Amino acid sequence: MTIATHIKAKLSGASWIRKMFEEGARLKTEHGVENVFDFSLGNPNLEPPEAFDKALKDAVASSSGNDHAYMPNMGYPHVRRSVAEYLSQEQRVRVSENDVIMTCGAAGALNAILKAILDPGDEVITPSPYFVEYQFYADNHGGILKTVPTKPDFTLNIDALSETVTQRTKAVLINSPNNPTGQVYSKASIDALGRLLKEKGRKLNRTVYLIADEPYRKIVYDGCTVPSIFESYNQSIIANSYSKDISIPGERIGYIAVHPEASFNKELIEGMALTNRILGFVNAPALMQRVVASCQGSSADISAYARKRDLLCNGLGECGYDFVKPPGAFYLFPKTPVPDDVAFVKELQKELILVVPGSGFGGPGHFRIAYCVDDRTITNAMPGFERVMKKFKV
Amino acid sequence: MTIATHIKAKLSGASWIRKMFEEGARLKTEHGVENVFDFSLGNPNLEPPEAFDKALKDAVASSSGNDHAYMPNMGYPHVRRSVAEYLSQEQRVRVSENDVIMTCGAAGALNAILKAILDPGDEVITPSPYFVEYQFYADNHGGILKTVPTKPDFTLNIDALSETVTQRTKAVLINSPNNPTGQVYSKASIDALGRLLKEKGRKLNRTVYLIADEPYRKIVYDGCTVPSIFESYNQSIIANSYSKDISIPGERIGYIAVHPEASFNKELIEGMALTNRILGFVNAPALMQRVVASCQGSSADISAYARKRDLLCNGLGECGYDFVKPPGAFYLFPKTPVPDDVAFVKELQKELILVVPGSGFGGPGHFRIAYCVDDRTITNAMPGFERVMKKFKV
Repeated sequence: MTIATHIKAKLSGASWIRKMFEEGARLKTEHGVENVFDFSLGNPNLEPPEAFDKALKDAVASSSGNDHAYMPNMGYPHVRRSVAEYLSQEQRVRVSENDVIMTCGAAGALNAILKAILDPGDEVITPSPYFVEYQFYADNHGGILKTVPTKPDFTLNIDALSETVTQRTKAVLINSPNNPTGQVYSKASIDALGRLLKEKGRKLNRTVYLIADEPYRKIVYDGCTVPSIFESYNQSIIANSYSKDISIPGERIGYIAVHPEASFNKELIEGMALTNRILGFVNAPALMQRVVASCQGSSADISAYARKRDLLCNGLGECGYDFVKPPGAFYLFPKTPVPDDVAFVKELQKELILVVPGSGFGGPGHFRIAYCVDDRTITNAMPGFERVMKKFKV
Repeated sequence: MTIATHIKAKLSGASWIRKMFEEGARLKTEHGVENVFDFSLGNPNLEPPEAFDKALKDAVASSSGNDHAYMPNMGYPHVRRSVAEYLSQEQRVRVSENDVIMTCGAAGALNAILKAILDPGDEVITPSPYFVEYQFYADNHGGILKTVPTKPDFTLNIDALSETVTQRTKAVLINSPNNPTGQVYSKASIDALGRLLKEKGRKLNRTVYLIADEPYRKIVYDGCTVPSIFESYNQSIIANSYSKDISIPGERIGYIAVHPEASFNKELIEGMALTNRILGFVNAPALMQRVVASCQGSSADISAYARKRDLLCNGLGECGYDFVKPPGAFYLFPKTPVPDDVAFVKELQKELILVVPGSGFGGPGHFRIAYCVDDRTITNAMPGFERVMKKFKV
């Protein structure tokens, strides 16, 4: 008797992914970090924007003792006001500070949301491929994650979603721009999803919430825009984070926003303020709350990610890789030329290229490249990508 | 169908406490914050030490973009090394960085620990009166909190603890210096507890962990020392935080340390690194990790708390209150002169004095005074404390 049985199972269940990471670490030790092409982590490599640096310096210079004390569990009122003002413009729906809770990143936000709404056995539906942590987040709170395949281009399959909504469905959880595909769901598809959930809610006589996990919202290319969730469906909850767009994932700062017209809005917010507290977050980190309040709307140099995406897509296209060119996030999710994506990824490792098999995201036969890396990592990895493709495509 | 049934129950279950806080807020609005004597929250009122201010300014001045990125989920290796070095001296047991995980405060630490060790129905034993959040923390992860009364002076009752340990017991959770009583458990009692758990473990053929929640360790008076947990029992895990001693509870920074000789030490650490990630903490806030690494061992001016304690104890003693003078933390837990502590606390509210009924801590017939407040709040509240005591003691 030692650690919990279910945690032991999770540790050994994830062991092949861990082994891959361990192998990656070994390769770095053996060949030197600079000689390994690591595309395995969504750790933004761009500098935070100047607005962040300035806000941080200002916040520290002006801080008094009390600025590190507890504040209301939901966060500083002035910070929530600042988020609400920005969000009202972004979503084109008027949001107030009372609709916003500051959180420990989007991961903290999603856990607080799911704990507040899930009873044992309740289902959460997510389109696949999907961010693998969702499985844990639902399971943490007794829920069950149901996955529904997207279309071949990774856009929403509304019919398939419709078939999966049942009496047990508590929420649909979407992530657009998407990790691992980089796909962005269109306004038409979000509208259709909103209509579907409204209709289902009426028939089932219950509220089916739409949870939008949006940390990549600002990371889009070629003039692509991410539609407003709040405009399309009023039973919606946004989880967001400053990790990816401001390049500060280590600082753990984000927020929850509940649609002001959502059913039982007040109860939801009270419930999530409670779950945010009792899960041990207590409140979002104080200093970073004050910092992000001063740099709403700013982001790292997204054009650099656009350049990396083009460099990668052009290179891989020439090598014969098959993929959907992604309009957002910093991930590419190409097909593997053979069904066994783990075998393919192991071959890439031999070329000192580290990527993640699609199976890890519910998308077998694919692999994920996180291209938030130096341009030269992309350029220098290309010969390896080419050799491996040639080996498989005979 | 809206929020989860169990969360709804928790919200309404805590409603009398919430009503008290709402009443407190109303009194502040009506009479002005400065005219209300708020002893209800353990929010340290002392300034953080200079070492913290310096470390924060230095960390920000020297920070580059990468300093806000993800690091290993367990925390920066150099930070964990710095914690391990300090802890090795404090506990007089050699601890390495591999035994330490940086967390989102002690609340985050306890949730990560309990999720890693609890299977559904597993029991955690805690001496009462106890920090009320423990109930939530155990419940979050399917565990059951069993409380065991302490002796009348709030010291450990080893015999009572012994009777409560069963085949279902996964851990004993202690908090010394204690919230809400301020009591500190002696070396002899920790040794006895260690012997008991070792003996029980042998008989039951399982490991019973001792979890020590120690955020008040540095806040002790009159030369009192808090004994080493690691010296007394090697199946032990420490949860700690910089919230109370450095006065930075809003920043959410703390750590887990596992005894290097604990059974399945490696599995425990791996399990807790996983639970810390999947619960949504991901990692402890990056900047604050680097800051606390540079101010290990420093603390706010504890002598000021000692002065406040004496001011309060002398004043209340003269009014006829009955209490155990606490050797640590910044809480006093006097008896109420009538069994109904809620009724008594409501009378104090009429004098604009805000405290928390002991029932909220599993200690009915008492009330908690958090004396981390201005000296004049204590002095000015004394006539009110006296009038209410006179009303009840006829």
